[in-house]
Amino acid sequence: LVGSTQFSFAFTDLSGYVLLSLEIRAQLVEQQKCLEQQTEMRVQLLQDLQDFFRKKSEIEMEYSRNLEKLAERFMAKTRSTKDHQQYKKDQNLLSPVNCWYLLLNQVRRESKDHATLSDIYLNNVIMRFMQISEDSTRMFKKSKEIAFQLHEDLMKVLNELYTVMKTYHMYHAESISAESKLKEAEKQEEKQIGRSGDPVFHIRLEERHQRRSSVKKIEKMKEKRQAKYSENKLKSIKARNEYLLTLEATNASVFKYYIHDLSDLIDCCDLGYHASLNRALRTYLSAEYNLETSRHEGLDIIENAVDSLEPRSDKQRFMEMYPTAFCPPMKFEFQSHMGDEVCQVTAQQPVQAELMLRHQQLQSRLATLKIENEEVR
Amino acid sequence: LVGSTQFSFAFTDLSGYVLLSLEIRAQLVEQQKCLEQQTEMRVQLLQDLQDFFRKKSEIEMEYSRNLEKLAERFMAKTRSTKDHQQYKKDQNLLSPVNCWYLLLNQVRRESKDHATLSDIYLNNVIMRFMQISEDSTRMFKKSKEIAFQLHEDLMKVLNELYTVMKTYHMYHAESISAESKLKEAEKQEEKQIGRSGDPVFHIRLEERHQRRSSVKKIEKMKEKRQAKYSENKLKSIKARNEYLLTLEATNASVFKYYIHDLSDLIDCCDLGYHASLNRALRTYLSAEYNLETSRHEGLDIIENAVDSLEPRSDKQRFMEMYPTAFCPPMKFEFQSHMGDEVCQVTAQQPVQAELMLRHQQLQSRLATLKIENEEVR
Repeated sequence: LVGSTQFSFAFTDLSGYVLLSLEIRAQLVEQQKCLEQQTEMRVQLLQDLQDFFRKKSEIEMEYSRNLEKLAERFMAKTRSTKDHQQYKKDQNLLSPVNCWYLLLNQVRRESKDHATLSDIYLNNVIMRFMQISEDSTRMFKKSKEIAFQLHEDLMKVLNELYTVMKTYHMYHAESISAESKLKEAEKQEEKQIGRSGDPVFHIRLEERHQRRSSVKKIEKMKEKRQAKYSENKLKSIKARNEYLLTLEATNASVFKYYIHDLSDLIDCCDLGYHASLNRALRTYLSAEYNLETSRHEGLDIIENAVDSLEPRSDKQRFMEMYPTAFCPPMKFEFQSHMGDEVCQVTAQQPVQAELMLRHQQLQSRLATLKIENEEVR
Repeated sequence: LVGSTQFSFAFTDLSGYVLLSLEIRAQLVEQQKCLEQQTEMRVQLLQDLQDFFRKKSEIEMEYSRNLEKLAERFMAKTRSTKDHQQYKKDQNLLSPVNCWYLLLNQVRRESKDHATLSDIYLNNVIMRFMQISEDSTRMFKKSKEIAFQLHEDLMKVLNELYTVMKTYHMYHAESISAESKLKEAEKQEEKQIGRSGDPVFHIRLEERHQRRSSVKKIEKMKEKRQAKYSENKLKSIKARNEYLLTLEATNASVFKYYIHDLSDLIDCCDLGYHASLNRALRTYLSAEYNLETSRHEGLDIIENAVDSLEPRSDKQRFMEMYPTAFCPPMKFEFQSHMGDEVCQVTAQQPVQAELMLRHQQLQSRLATLKIENEEVR
């Protein structure tokens, strides 16, 4: 019963090793799957990014075309006008017309900028994502090769551990067996020695001779078993030493794999991935920021023009545009009649009194008007 | 001949007045035309601005819808994935996936911002331009009414000047005529007096009586002509005074109209035009700047995420995502065989020498490997 239990215990221990080894082997497969899945997800993400930027490039191009058409439609309309010809000539426009032209310019600028954006998406950003996708797949394949080698090595170590453990168990079992056989021989010897302690005279000569031969036999057997036991004992010790050292080495190998190699494998898959993605997205960001800067510049130009919306200078320009309409006419000159040499108001009697009266009337009228004017204000 | 020249001269003078008056009248009509044309150009410009922003509003709305569709397409694709569920759960994503989601968010933000822009164009900017157009037309009509009154007044003044000038010329002509008649009478009187100086005795009584009667007659006529001349002379002086004063007044009125009233008329047309245009364009600018700010914020968020593209933390997250695959296994423990109580390497004789040898061999192997490793580096 005891022996059976011990056997079952030993079996369990061995199976524990096997299970742990199988578990590790399963983990290695699982790890490989995870890395493969990660690569697939990356490839999928990069495909999505390419599709996304391809579609966005189309949207930007369509937007650009629509803006261009819009600008062109109104540019064509104004190109023939007098204002525009003046614009071409001296850039001296009425301030609202200036704003209008700058608005059209801004739309043109936006159109160009979005076309540039579309182009950068299509011919730079997407290309980068494509390259990263290829690199990711390539790096995963490389890492898979390395992993395969590492796993092989690890399996070799685990197999070796199993082998040395089995050897140790075998030699130790043999050592136990040799020991028990030796003990049995010693017991027989003792029994024989106990018998030889009986009074000799009671024993017959022949019988005595027989006993001596038996003792010698037992002694020889004991020596043989002693030698066997020593040999097995040494083998067992060596096997145990080997097992203990291999155990240490295996644990170190497993530890090294899980803590260092596995991390290196992931690093191998990752190699350049984040940096390349960073560069691709920075290309996108830089294009977007450039568009923003250009757009902002354009808006600032319009803002300046809006700040310069000024009725006074426009009035001046308006009047200069039509000089015949707004130029004050010649003064009416005094036209003397047939040699009349007087060309001033004469105020001798009797005209003087009349003029004085009129002057007074005018002054009082003026005073009234002034008061009225003040009231209106 | 001399008289004829004088007449022709006088006629030219008068016709100069008429021409100048006609010229002014033509200018007034021309001015009105210019203001009308200016208003028409403004209304046209404001119509163009409305059409422009209506069309741009459509373009922005279409752009917004396309961006929304783009974002929705990829959002829908990712919504079902494990990553997205994790995203919803703890916002703890792999850094490239985080960038990807932020890119989609940015497109959504751009879509919303351009929809807002489209809405502001349609429901604010265009309305403002419409209002300014109505105001411009209204202000032009008002200014036209005022101009009509001013022109009426000016024409009255010009007509008056013509009238008083004609009056002066007429009275002066009459005064000249009266003077010449008076001079003729004086000549006759002198002739008569010269005759009466002849020796009386040579003359018959009847003849003498006749002469006396003639002298008296001439004297009476001279007195009458003297009175007539004085009266005409005074009339002529008064008319000239009136003419001179009206001339001053007319020139002042014309000057006032051309320098002040005309400017006020243009101001009346301009009233609020530049300020309203300024506000409308500022509404546009403000909407554009707001879009820019929002866009910039979004790009900065993406830039931050791009800065955070980090393989180390992603590796950590990746391994945490699959704990069963990457968790290091249990240590292999020493499994002693059937009551073997020794669980350490035993190094008594004769195993010791062997172990020592093996140790030396391992150390030299290690040294070699270290050197090789250094070389590889």
